[in-house]
Amino acid sequence: MAAIYDTISIIGMGLIGSSIALASKKYGLANHVIGCARTEETCQTALDLGLAERMETDPAKAVEGADLVILCTPVGTFKEIGTAIAPLMKPGATLTDVGSVKQAVVDALEDIVPADIHFIPGHPVAGTEQSGPTAGFSSLFKGRWCILTPPESNVYQPDIDEAEQALEKLKSFWMGMGSMVEIMTPTHHDLVLAITSHVPHLIAYNIVGTARDLETVTASEVIKYSAGGFRDFTRIASSDPTMWRDIFLTNKDAVLEMLGRFTEDLSALQRAIRWGDGESLYDFFAESRNVRRRVVEAGQDEDTPDFGRAHEDES
Amino acid sequence: MAAIYDTISIIGMGLIGSSIALASKKYGLANHVIGCARTEETCQTALDLGLAERMETDPAKAVEGADLVILCTPVGTFKEIGTAIAPLMKPGATLTDVGSVKQAVVDALEDIVPADIHFIPGHPVAGTEQSGPTAGFSSLFKGRWCILTPPESNVYQPDIDEAEQALEKLKSFWMGMGSMVEIMTPTHHDLVLAITSHVPHLIAYNIVGTARDLETVTASEVIKYSAGGFRDFTRIASSDPTMWRDIFLTNKDAVLEMLGRFTEDLSALQRAIRWGDGESLYDFFAESRNVRRRVVEAGQDEDTPDFGRAHEDES
Repeated sequence: MAAIYDTISIIGMGLIGSSIALASKKYGLANHVIGCARTEETCQTALDLGLAERMETDPAKAVEGADLVILCTPVGTFKEIGTAIAPLMKPGATLTDVGSVKQAVVDALEDIVPADIHFIPGHPVAGTEQSGPTAGFSSLFKGRWCILTPPESNVYQPDIDEAEQALEKLKSFWMGMGSMVEIMTPTHHDLVLAITSHVPHLIAYNIVGTARDLETVTASEVIKYSAGGFRDFTRIASSDPTMWRDIFLTNKDAVLEMLGRFTEDLSALQRAIRWGDGESLYDFFAESRNVRRRVVEAGQDEDTPDFGRAHEDES
Repeated sequence: MAAIYDTISIIGMGLIGSSIALASKKYGLANHVIGCARTEETCQTALDLGLAERMETDPAKAVEGADLVILCTPVGTFKEIGTAIAPLMKPGATLTDVGSVKQAVVDALEDIVPADIHFIPGHPVAGTEQSGPTAGFSSLFKGRWCILTPPESNVYQPDIDEAEQALEKLKSFWMGMGSMVEIMTPTHHDLVLAITSHVPHLIAYNIVGTARDLETVTASEVIKYSAGGFRDFTRIASSDPTMWRDIFLTNKDAVLEMLGRFTEDLSALQRAIRWGDGESLYDFFAESRNVRRRVVEAGQDEDTPDFGRAHEDES
């Protein structure tokens, strides 16, 4: 595939940043990759892994001349980094991110980004519980959806055609890494992710905490017998704590809304257990199997990433 | 390995029953395997798969002459099946089960089982979300714990030495399939499993239900973006509904106790989100990583079954 961008700048070399570096190189999507990490140590690791041709600890130095800048740091850092890089970005370049919340990203950056920069927030719905520059792999985005939330109205864009071209280029970049791309508003994104990702992570963290605090069951018993289901929650609950703190702080309303529904529903199940209502329990459990079947059919099960689907979507 | 039992009878050919059939054959733990399933169709499937040399639809016919009878049907069926098979079991034989709750099994069977039968309830903490006779595989129990809950006092046993020998034989049988064996009381088992298995399954079923009922997020969006965490819950929530109904009906007290703690803890997290208490959230999330590390170190992660450990435990 011909390069989509001449130079890309990846700010933050964690799981997602390092995976973008590897995938853009593997599929020839950029001629040059510049990276940025907070510490010299991570910069060296990234260079050793061949993730970028140049690494900087100062984001401002990493974005000069880049045609695409991708923020891959925790969302809580975006305002500071955005303020530092905005004046130095190349006119006509695109600024995107991979944050798990989107309205907060718009709020943090929309007043900072100059009018001659195309600001297109994004979120690849892909990941593992691993973090850091060594965690990345080039197939992370294959068969997974990437959600882009471009500004709802183009009236403030100096050139509508140019804005549309910038969006098309960014879509091609993600599709080149194997993703399917969907466009939605930031607020709808945040609602969808609250139920499909944020609340699931919160309850996984929560059950691990509940188990940790028990007096009647020892910690070693919890570990020994974790194969009964608990281990899956420990895996989900081992994701990067800084990233998840920022997600819950910045998607508060949608998370609290979904959490309210979750606890209401849990109360109903609790009541069915207390009253021995086997029929309700059976019906409730049986219905869940259909949802699972649809997840597997959609190729979103962890064991069935399906690269072929991504390319059918390229239109 | 020399056969531990001449003839074993497996009542119920689901995931666990069929895996025991395959493992006992593979490791030469029994000379003869008799199976029992509710329908002729399942019996034929089991015979086609080579799970047993004889299949019966009537449990009473399947236990005659067996040295070990293993109940692998949902716990809700045990009283009826126990009543049917008790008079026909061979004196001196062992009756065990693989149910996910243990006090309810003792309650259902202790008055039915004749004094000349060794009744040793058991629970292999192993499984997948699959069910049925085709789901079994011989390595399911490798590196996993099997909990046995023999009667607490031996005073009612006609011969204490014989009872101890029966327990040792059953332990050897599970270790022969690659398991580590632990002895505990039925009530303690139920408490441990409530937190490591039953409540995790309940909240997985619950979040799948919450997602299903949303109006603001479509079902297809839930499926499309499930890779953000939700898909793991759909997998857990696709386990056999009859089995799980019975678990919640029969381990009510321990489940309600653990669920109460879970919801209390969740309220605290909810409050931290509402008040923007990032420090508490970070600390809570960071601690979970240690639990994950210990699960992986203990070889209980799904990707790291470690057969070697099982044999170190054989003493």
